[in-house]
Amino acid sequence: MVDAALETKAAANPARRGRRRHANGSGATGPELFPQKAFRQPRNIYKPLEAVSADELESIHQSSLTVLKEIGIDFLHDEARAMLKTAGADVAPNSERVRFDPVLVEELVSKAPAEFTVHARNSAHNLKIGGDYIAFSCVASAPNAQDRDSGRRPGNQQDYRNFLKLAQFFNIIHCVMGYPVEPVDIHASVRHLDCVSDMVRMTDKVFHIYSLGKERNLDGLEITRIGMGLSNEEFRRTPSVVSIINTSSPLRLDTPMLQGLIEMANAGQVSVITPFTLSGAMAPVTVAGALVLQNAEALAGLAFTQLVKPGAPVIYGGFTSNVDMKSGSPAFGTPEYVKAALVGGQLARRYELPYRSSGVCAANTVDYQAALETTLSEWGAINGGGNLIKHAAGWLEGGLSAGFEKFIADVDLLQMLAEYLTPLDVSPEALAIDAIRDVGPGGHFFGTQHTQDRYKDAFYAPILSDWRNYETWAEAGSPTAYDKANILYKKALEAYQSPSLDPAIGEELDAFVAKRKEEGGAPTDF
Amino acid sequence: MVDAALETKAAANPARRGRRRHANGSGATGPELFPQKAFRQPRNIYKPLEAVSADELESIHQSSLTVLKEIGIDFLHDEARAMLKTAGADVAPNSERVRFDPVLVEELVSKAPAEFTVHARNSAHNLKIGGDYIAFSCVASAPNAQDRDSGRRPGNQQDYRNFLKLAQFFNIIHCVMGYPVEPVDIHASVRHLDCVSDMVRMTDKVFHIYSLGKERNLDGLEITRIGMGLSNEEFRRTPSVVSIINTSSPLRLDTPMLQGLIEMANAGQVSVITPFTLSGAMAPVTVAGALVLQNAEALAGLAFTQLVKPGAPVIYGGFTSNVDMKSGSPAFGTPEYVKAALVGGQLARRYELPYRSSGVCAANTVDYQAALETTLSEWGAINGGGNLIKHAAGWLEGGLSAGFEKFIADVDLLQMLAEYLTPLDVSPEALAIDAIRDVGPGGHFFGTQHTQDRYKDAFYAPILSDWRNYETWAEAGSPTAYDKANILYKKALEAYQSPSLDPAIGEELDAFVAKRKEEGGAPTDF
Repeated sequence: MVDAALETKAAANPARRGRRRHANGSGATGPELFPQKAFRQPRNIYKPLEAVSADELESIHQSSLTVLKEIGIDFLHDEARAMLKTAGADVAPNSERVRFDPVLVEELVSKAPAEFTVHARNSAHNLKIGGDYIAFSCVASAPNAQDRDSGRRPGNQQDYRNFLKLAQFFNIIHCVMGYPVEPVDIHASVRHLDCVSDMVRMTDKVFHIYSLGKERNLDGLEITRIGMGLSNEEFRRTPSVVSIINTSSPLRLDTPMLQGLIEMANAGQVSVITPFTLSGAMAPVTVAGALVLQNAEALAGLAFTQLVKPGAPVIYGGFTSNVDMKSGSPAFGTPEYVKAALVGGQLARRYELPYRSSGVCAANTVDYQAALETTLSEWGAINGGGNLIKHAAGWLEGGLSAGFEKFIADVDLLQMLAEYLTPLDVSPEALAIDAIRDVGPGGHFFGTQHTQDRYKDAFYAPILSDWRNYETWAEAGSPTAYDKANILYKKALEAYQSPSLDPAIGEELDAFVAKRKEEGGAPTDF
Repeated sequence: MVDAALETKAAANPARRGRRRHANGSGATGPELFPQKAFRQPRNIYKPLEAVSADELESIHQSSLTVLKEIGIDFLHDEARAMLKTAGADVAPNSERVRFDPVLVEELVSKAPAEFTVHARNSAHNLKIGGDYIAFSCVASAPNAQDRDSGRRPGNQQDYRNFLKLAQFFNIIHCVMGYPVEPVDIHASVRHLDCVSDMVRMTDKVFHIYSLGKERNLDGLEITRIGMGLSNEEFRRTPSVVSIINTSSPLRLDTPMLQGLIEMANAGQVSVITPFTLSGAMAPVTVAGALVLQNAEALAGLAFTQLVKPGAPVIYGGFTSNVDMKSGSPAFGTPEYVKAALVGGQLARRYELPYRSSGVCAANTVDYQAALETTLSEWGAINGGGNLIKHAAGWLEGGLSAGFEKFIADVDLLQMLAEYLTPLDVSPEALAIDAIRDVGPGGHFFGTQHTQDRYKDAFYAPILSDWRNYETWAEAGSPTAYDKANILYKKALEAYQSPSLDPAIGEELDAFVAKRKEEGGAPTDF
C-alpha cells in the first residue's frame, strides 16, 4: 500500500479535506426506490480461471519478449527514446524503433507495485487496486449518448453531467474512468477543464484524466490535487487519479500517450497500459497471436513507466477481442473475447500486477444481445481476476454510445455480481438443521421463524427482472427491461445529491479553471 | 466406463442396430444457414470454481448426514422401506420415516460409478457422463409452448414433435432429457407410448423416460431396448436411457419416483437424483440450509439406487434456487442460484459422482432478462463442473413454457460456450511472431497471408447477434434477436431430416406400441 501514513493522517483530520462522511458512503438518497448496499469493493472469493497452462502462458510471454527484442516497438517521443537508450534499450538511429533486451523488460516491470490504493476526495471511496479487490467503473469515452426520450445524439455537457450523477448515485459504481460521454458542445481547448472540475464537484469518487497532450495532463493533475486538498508534495505520494494509456496497435506508442505516461508517473499517479488489440484487424487473427501483441505492447509501456519513476502505480490492461470478419467491426463478449480476458489476467498475475478488464458489448440497445454479450464479458473479467473493470455500466455499440437505460441494466448486473462475490454464510444458523427439523418432511419453510427472521435481506432483489407470471406480465403490456430502466434512470437522476465540497477548495478550483480558460486552455488548431 | 466390450462390439457391427452413420453425426442438413460444428461433447478445460472452502463443504456434508440420521426422510414405498431396513437403516414402525447411519450412506454412495457412457441408437451420439465431459439437453416438462406465430398454448403433439426435430437438428443439443413440452392432447394413459417411440424414431440421441408409475417405466425401458436393438441381457449392461428422480422437498421420496428408481437401477439404466430445493419455500431461506437439504435428499436417493443395484449409473442433481420473497415464485440465474450451482458441483465431486445442473431463467420471452438469467445460470453450471446440463435450450417462465425462439437463442449461447471450452491454440503458428514481424508497427493484419489462411474459421459466427452499426441496424427496423430466432427456428424445422431406423426395429416398435395401446396403456383414473 502506498503511503499508509498519509492515509491515516487524512483520516484523522477529515475537515482538512472538506469531506462530509457518510457511514455507507452513499448519502441518504432514494433508499425506497433503490435499496442499495453501502459502497464497498467486492473481493474475488473465487480462484481465477486459467485458459492456458503455465507452459503455454510462458510461450506467450516469451513470444512477447521476442517481439520486443527482434521487431521492437515505435516510441513516437524523442525524450522517451533518449531515456530508453540511456537505460540500455536498442534505439535505432533516425528511427522511432526501440528494441528491448528481455532482461531489461523484466527488470523494469518487476519494480511496479502489486497493489496500491487510489485515493478519492471522500476517503470512504478510496479504492484498493490489486490482489482480490474489484472496482467497477462506468462507460467511458463514448462519442454518443442515447436514451428512449431523446434518441441517439452526439455527446453533450448535459448528458455528460447526467452520467456523472448516475455514477455518483449508485454505490456499485466505484470510479469514473473517463468521460462517460464526450461533451462535444464544449470547445476542445477547455473541455478538460470543465469536465475534470465537474468530476471533482459532482462526484467524490476516484476519476480519470485523459492523456491528450501535456497541458491537459498537467491541468487534470492540478485540478485533482486541488480537489484532494493536498500539497504538491503530498499529492505526489498519494495516487489520486488514473489515466488510460492506449497503445496504437500494432507496436506503437504515440506522442500524447507517452507524454501522459511521463506526467502521470512523475506525479506518482496511476497509468493503465491498455493495448486495444483487435484480432483480425490491428492484431493477428489468432487469439494467441493477438495476446502476444497485447502483451508485448503492455510490457513496453509498463517497463517505460518504471523507467520514468520506479514504483509508479500501474495497471496491466487487457482489451483483446475479435472483429466480425464480414464487416471488420469489433465484437465483444464473444467466446474469443472471454478466453483472451482470462489469459490477460494470467499474464497480469505472472507479472504480479493489477489487471484491468471490461464489461462491454456490441449491441445497439438494451436487448437480448446486450445482456448476453455484457454478461459474457463480465464472465471473462471476473473469472479472469480483473481488478479494475472498465465500461461496466452504460456501454453500448462497441463503445460508440453511452446509454442511460443500459446504465441501469448494468448497475443491476454489477449488483448481482457483487452478491455472487459475497461469501456464502455457512454458520450453524445458516446451515439450518433446526429449521429443517422444525419443518420436517412435507412441510413448508415460508412461515417459519428462521425464514421470518431473514427473508427481507435473504436474496438480491433485482432492479429490472420481471418475475410476474406470464399472464400478469402480458396483461401489463409485456413490459421490457428497457421500459423499466427508462423510468428508473430518471428517478435516479432526481435522487442524486451533490457531494459536499469544502468552499475553500471550491474557490481554489474555480480560480484555477478561470485562469486556465483565460489563458486559452490547451492549444488546439481549430 | 460401463461395458466397453459391448460398445466395441456394437461399433464393429453397426448394421445390426440399423444405423446410418454420418461422419459428423449431424446429417447433411442446412450447412449454409446453420454452419454447425460436428456433434461433439465439450470438455471442461477450466478448473471448477469453489464457492466454499473444503471445511465449509464438509460442514454442509456433515449437516446433511445429521439431517438423515436425526430427522430422517420419508420413503413413500413399502418395498423400499423394507429393503432399507434389511440394509440396516432405522425404519420407524407404522411410519414412512427412514433414518440413516452416516456410515451406511457413505458406504452405499461410494458404490456408484464416477463415470459411465450412456448409449444412443446412433453410437456417434453416445454420451460420456462424468469427469470433464459436458452434455447439453434441451428444455423438458414444460406444460406450455410458445412462439410468435401462435402465441402461448398448452403443449400438444405437434409442438412436442417440433421440439424433437430441433433437438435432433442441432448438434450442440446432446440429448433430450424429458418431453420438451407436455403433449396434453394425447391421453395420459398412452402418452408415454407415443412420446417415447417418437424419441426413438425422430431422434437418434440419448433420451429420458419419466418415472410416473411402474407401467410407464417398463414401457419406456422396453421401447428403448427395442430402439437400441439389444437383447434384454445386453440392455441391462448398456446404459441407454435416463430418468430424473425428483425428491418431494422437504425430505420426501414419493411412490412413483421410488418405483422409477428401482426399475431404472434394476435395468442398469441411469437415474438423476434431483431435489428441487427452493430456498424460502420448500427449503430453508438460507442458501447453505437449502444446500444441506438438497444434499440430504440427494444422498438418500443416491444411496438407495446403490442398494437396489450396486454400481448402477447415477448422477448427482442440484437444482437449488431462491424464490421471489414477494410473490413466492421461483427465480433462476440469480446470484444465490449461481452460488448454489457451484456448491452443488463441489458436493458431487466430493462423492466422485457426475453432476447435473441447468440452463434456466424466469423470463417470459426472449428478452434482456432471458439472456441475463440464462447466461448466469450457465455461469453456475459450467463453472460448477456440470456434466449434464438440463433445460439448456428453450426454457422460459421458470419452466412453465418451452419457447421455439428461445431454443434458437440458447443454441447460439451453447455454441458460444462450446467455443469457450475449446482449448486456445498456442502453437508457434498461432503465436504469430512472423505475422507480427511482417506487418510491423502501424500496419494492419487484415490482408496478410496469416489472416487469409485462417479468417473463415477464426471466430465463432453468432446466429443472432446483430453486429451492424447503429444506423444500419436502425434503418433495418431495429430487428431483435427474437425476430431473427422466429425466422430461424422454422428454417431449422424445414431442414430437419429424420434419422434412419432399421425397418425391423420400426416394426417391432410399432407392434409393441399397438399391443400396449390395446391393453389400455398405463392405467389412469380418468
